[in-house]
Amino acid sequence: MRLSRYFMPILKETPKEAEIVSHRLMLRTGMIRQQSQGIYSWLPLGKRVLDKVNAVIREEQNRAGAIELSMPTLQSADLWQESGRYEDYGKEMLRIRDRQDRPMLYGPTNEEMVTDIFRSYVKSYKSLPLNLYHIQLKFRDEIRPRFGTMRSREFLMKDAYSFDLTQAEAIHSYNKMFVAYLRTFDRLGLRAIPMRADTGPIGGNHSHEFIILADTGESEVFCHKSFVDFDIPPVDTDFDNVEGLQTIFDKWTSVYAATSEMHDEAAFAAIGEGDRLSARGIEVGHIFYFGTKYSEPMGAKVQGPDGKEHPVHMGSYGIGPTRLVPAIIEASHDENGIIWPESIAPFNAVVINMKPGDEACDSTCERLYAALQNAGKDVLYDDTDDRAGTKFATADLIGVPVQVIAGPRAVAAGEVELKDRKTGARETLTIEAAINKLTA
Amino acid sequence: MRLSRYFMPILKETPKEAEIVSHRLMLRTGMIRQQSQGIYSWLPLGKRVLDKVNAVIREEQNRAGAIELSMPTLQSADLWQESGRYEDYGKEMLRIRDRQDRPMLYGPTNEEMVTDIFRSYVKSYKSLPLNLYHIQLKFRDEIRPRFGTMRSREFLMKDAYSFDLTQAEAIHSYNKMFVAYLRTFDRLGLRAIPMRADTGPIGGNHSHEFIILADTGESEVFCHKSFVDFDIPPVDTDFDNVEGLQTIFDKWTSVYAATSEMHDEAAFAAIGEGDRLSARGIEVGHIFYFGTKYSEPMGAKVQGPDGKEHPVHMGSYGIGPTRLVPAIIEASHDENGIIWPESIAPFNAVVINMKPGDEACDSTCERLYAALQNAGKDVLYDDTDDRAGTKFATADLIGVPVQVIAGPRAVAAGEVELKDRKTGARETLTIEAAINKLTA
Repeated sequence: MRLSRYFMPILKETPKEAEIVSHRLMLRTGMIRQQSQGIYSWLPLGKRVLDKVNAVIREEQNRAGAIELSMPTLQSADLWQESGRYEDYGKEMLRIRDRQDRPMLYGPTNEEMVTDIFRSYVKSYKSLPLNLYHIQLKFRDEIRPRFGTMRSREFLMKDAYSFDLTQAEAIHSYNKMFVAYLRTFDRLGLRAIPMRADTGPIGGNHSHEFIILADTGESEVFCHKSFVDFDIPPVDTDFDNVEGLQTIFDKWTSVYAATSEMHDEAAFAAIGEGDRLSARGIEVGHIFYFGTKYSEPMGAKVQGPDGKEHPVHMGSYGIGPTRLVPAIIEASHDENGIIWPESIAPFNAVVINMKPGDEACDSTCERLYAALQNAGKDVLYDDTDDRAGTKFATADLIGVPVQVIAGPRAVAAGEVELKDRKTGARETLTIEAAINKLTA
Repeated sequence: MRLSRYFMPILKETPKEAEIVSHRLMLRTGMIRQQSQGIYSWLPLGKRVLDKVNAVIREEQNRAGAIELSMPTLQSADLWQESGRYEDYGKEMLRIRDRQDRPMLYGPTNEEMVTDIFRSYVKSYKSLPLNLYHIQLKFRDEIRPRFGTMRSREFLMKDAYSFDLTQAEAIHSYNKMFVAYLRTFDRLGLRAIPMRADTGPIGGNHSHEFIILADTGESEVFCHKSFVDFDIPPVDTDFDNVEGLQTIFDKWTSVYAATSEMHDEAAFAAIGEGDRLSARGIEVGHIFYFGTKYSEPMGAKVQGPDGKEHPVHMGSYGIGPTRLVPAIIEASHDENGIIWPESIAPFNAVVINMKPGDEACDSTCERLYAALQNAGKDVLYDDTDDRAGTKFATADLIGVPVQVIAGPRAVAAGEVELKDRKTGARETLTIEAAINKLTA
C-alpha cells in the first residue's frame, strides 16, 4: 500500500477523552473513530489488525473442530422468552420494535438462537459432538461505555457453542476450547491466564475467564506466578485425545488463579509470598459449561444410543476481537507508539523513502516494495513528501515490526537500513540482502 | 472437511414457502435458515460461499484503489438529520431508541456516516481521490421481504464511497467502480449488464444498475443483445488511465439497455427486431454519482489548488453479497441442484468414499483428501455411512465442481472416477493422475 494513496489519518494531538494508552494510540494512529457513544468505525489501519486477529481466532477454532456459520444481529424476542432471559437481561439488551411492531432485539449473545438452530436439524447423538461458532457484531447497551473499543456498545464477538450428549463429553468439548484459547492468545503475543470465574447471566457451573495482566485492567486478579512458564499446547495437539486435553487442562488449573469475585484469601495466602501475584487484568476470553440450561426449556434434545431423548449438554465460548486489539496494545507499546506482534501487524514492513523524487531512492523503494509484495508480504510504502522526522515518528507510532529506510547516501552505496521496531536495532544491508532477509 | 464432522443439514423435502429455485436450493442444501421474517442465519455451507463471494468483491475493490474500513451498523439519528434524510427515508429505516432514549437507527446505507468520517480528517485536495468501502450488515425493514436472501431485511452490502475535488475526477472514480463491477460479476460467473437507472432515495444524476438476466427477476429490463459478446476488462487494466477507463465505459454504454423505470420505447424500437432483448432481471449492483448532495449540507469540504474551500464530489457503489449468492444460483443450476462456478464453490472437490470401513477405500480417500488439502484446496470428504445414492444426490445438490468417487472395484485397480458436476462428464484415472489433475 502506497501511503500517498492510503487513508491513515494520524492525529498530532493526543486526544483528551482517552484515559488509557491503547485508546490514545488507537485514536492517534487513525485505527478507530467514535461515531456515537461506545460505537466505533474501524478505519483502514484498525480494520487490517482486526482482520488478522480474526484470522488467528478462526484458525484455532477450526483446528479444534469448531464449525463457522453466521447468525444475524437482530433476533426475535420470542426465543428469549422461551429461555426466560428476555425479562432477566435488563437494560443492556437493546430492544427494538420493527414496522410490524414485533418485539426484536440486537443480540447481546446467541445461546438462544444457536439452540434453536440445533433443535431444528439435529435429532441423533450420532451427529455429536458439534461446536458451532461465528464472529459477529453484538450490542450491549452499557450504561458507561469506555476505554475505546475495550468496552464499547457495538462490538465484535467470536462466540462458539458446543453440543454433547453427556456431561463427560461436554467437558471434553470445553477442554478443546480451553486449549484453543491458550493457543490463540499465545499466537497474538499475549500470556493469558485462565481463572475460575463467576458465570453471570449466561448461567452454568464450570467457567473460566482468560485474563491478561495490565495496569489498566478492570478486574482485580490473584494468581500464582508460575503461570508465566507454562508451556503452550503445540500446533499438532490432538483435539480428539480426551485424556491428553484433560492433562493440559489440569496442568493449567493446578495452581491458584482467580478474579476478585472468586477470590479465596486463605488459598492465596497459602502460596509462598514470593510466588503470589496480585494485579489488574483484562478479560480477553470467557468459556462456560452450562449443561442443559437452554436445551431443557427450549427442547433441544437428541436420541441417545438408548433410544430415548436427552436434552443436550452445552457450553459457550467467547472472545472479543474488538477488545483484544486494545488489550494487545496495552501489553505491547512503548513511549513512541504501538509494537505489534508479527502475527497481527497491519503491515509486515514499512519502506521509507527518504527522498521521493530522487531517482535512485524511488527506484530502490519501488524494487523493495514490489519484491516484498510478490513474496506475499503486506507492505506499506511511505512515498509521501513528509519530512524524515515525521516519517520515522509515524513508522514508530503505528508499530510495524520492520522499517526499511532508503536514504540517498545508503542507496548510492547499494544499501538500505533496517530498523527493528521492538528492539530499535539497526543494520545496514545491501538491497538484495534486505530483500532476502525480509522474504525469508 | 469430513462430512461426518460437518454441519450440513440437507433437507429431504422441498420447503413449501420457497417460491424461487435459489431459495429452495439454499434451504435444501442447508446454506441458510430463516430466523425471523427476512432475517437469516448463514449455515456453514452458505457461509463458505458468502466468504468466497466477499473475497472476490474485495480483491476487485482493492485493485481499483478502494480502501477497506468498517463502519458500525448502528448510527446516530443526528447525522441523518444533517443530510435531511431522517424524515425522508420512511418506514424501511429501522429506528431505535437506546437506554438513554437517544434516537438511533440500523444503517440502511452509509452516505452520511462516511461523509462524517471524511470531513473529520480530510482537509486538502492533495488527499484525493479517495474511495472508502466496507462490507457490512445493513437493515431495511421491507414490508414484504421475500425470495430468501434475495430480498431480506438484514443483509450484507459492500458499499464504497468516492470523494473527488471536481466532477470530472468524480466521473473517473465512477468509471473505476464501473470497471471493477464488470470484472467482479464476470469472476462470479455472471454476465451483468449495466443499465441506466433511476437514482431513488440516494439521489444524484448519473447512475447504473448491474442486472443479470433471470426469469425470476423482479425488474423488467430491455437491452441490445450484443452485450453478451462484450469483452471484460482484463486483470491488468490500468485504473489510473482516465481515457482508457472512459473508453471501456463508453463501449459498455454504447448500446441500449434500461430498466423499466428508464425505458424509452422509441429507442428500443429502433433496434433491429432480432437484436432486441426484453426480459426479467436481478439487480446485483448499483452505482451512483451524486455530486455534492451530501458534502454540501454536511460541510465536507477540501481546500483546492486555488486556496479556496470546495465541497467534494461524491459517488456511492453497492453490491449485495447476500443477494448475489441466490442470483448466482438462479443463473447456474439444473434439476439436480446447484452448479457453483469454481471461483466461489464452497469446496473445490468432494471425495466420495463408496465403502467406508473398507481398508483400501479408506486409505485411498485419506490419501486423496490429504493431497488436495496440502495443495491448498478446499475439500469435502464424504466419509459417512450413507448409501451411495444418497451420497451422489448430495454431491450433485450442493454443486461442488468435481466429484472424486472411490469405489472398491476402482480402488482395487488403483483408480478413482472423476465426475464433472457441470457437464456430467466422467473419467477414470489412476489415483496419482487424479491428484495431479486436481492440484494442477
